[in-house]
Amino acid sequence: MIILGIDPGFEKLGCAVLKKEKTGDKLIYSTCLISKKKDPHEQRLLYLGKEIRKIIKKYKPDILSVEKLFFTKNQKTAMRVSEARGMILFIGALENLAIIEFTPLEIKMAITGYGKAEKRQMQEMVRAILKLTKLPKSDDEIDAIATALTCSAHNPHLIHKT
Amino acid sequence: MIILGIDPGFEKLGCAVLKKEKTGDKLIYSTCLISKKKDPHEQRLLYLGKEIRKIIKKYKPDILSVEKLFFTKNQKTAMRVSEARGMILFIGALENLAIIEFTPLEIKMAITGYGKAEKRQMQEMVRAILKLTKLPKSDDEIDAIATALTCSAHNPHLIHKT
Repeated sequence: MIILGIDPGFEKLGCAVLKKEKTGDKLIYSTCLISKKKDPHEQRLLYLGKEIRKIIKKYKPDILSVEKLFFTKNQKTAMRVSEARGMILFIGALENLAIIEFTPLEIKMAITGYGKAEKRQMQEMVRAILKLTKLPKSDDEIDAIATALTCSAHNPHLIHKT
Repeated sequence: MIILGIDPGFEKLGCAVLKKEKTGDKLIYSTCLISKKKDPHEQRLLYLGKEIRKIIKKYKPDILSVEKLFFTKNQKTAMRVSEARGMILFIGALENLAIIEFTPLEIKMAITGYGKAEKRQMQEMVRAILKLTKLPKSDDEIDAIATALTCSAHNPHLIHKT
């Protein structure tokens, strides 16, 4: 099974492609997409959406794993991130991917076994699980990897057939 | 100029197509799209998005006028409606439409000249402006017409060439 993990955002959006094999999960690709601040909001969504579709075309994931938005005090930001999430869910459905969503709590639980894990603990576990020599620089990219790993942990039977 | 007005939602979504002519605005088409409650959220977005694309293909609007989300106490609903808005803005940009957004206040001001106008006043003005013998039954449909009319009022010089 190939999993596309996404950490949603309208400024920065993390993407990770994970291959689930018998020997464990393998990170195939990850990136942090960045939209241009000077562009109108819909053009930023368009840019991010087009890049996501390119990644889907290239890596042909079976399933899309997306982080659910945590309730926040800043309602304006919450609305903008939700708009990005809507674009992502629409594209996932359009591309006929299975879609699964996880809360930040579920992701922390799956990766560290502890719902209140700190960022550094999360990142160290992501590195250890995937046996990476070094982590990507972008937090959003690492969050996307963690979201994909959570999907993998929730679906232990779905090994990629090659 | 042909204007597509949308009142965003994930359960009910109003759409209206308005033609701006020298003699005034003419309502070409309007509908209230309804997604199935039993479907997963992303399938509801997919259904609504596909229907919007059909309307765009058929009526070839130049501009998309969308109602901005009003801040609300129910953050969960706000997020879901924002997700629908994200899907709508993405499709508008993908279809290369100009996009303009209006707050509920701006729409009320444009239609009735009064920012605190009540629903009945709004609906009566929409009926009068378009010289309709009767209004559509759906409030979302009427709101979409009002959003399209607001766009028309803000762009008095853009007459449709035929």
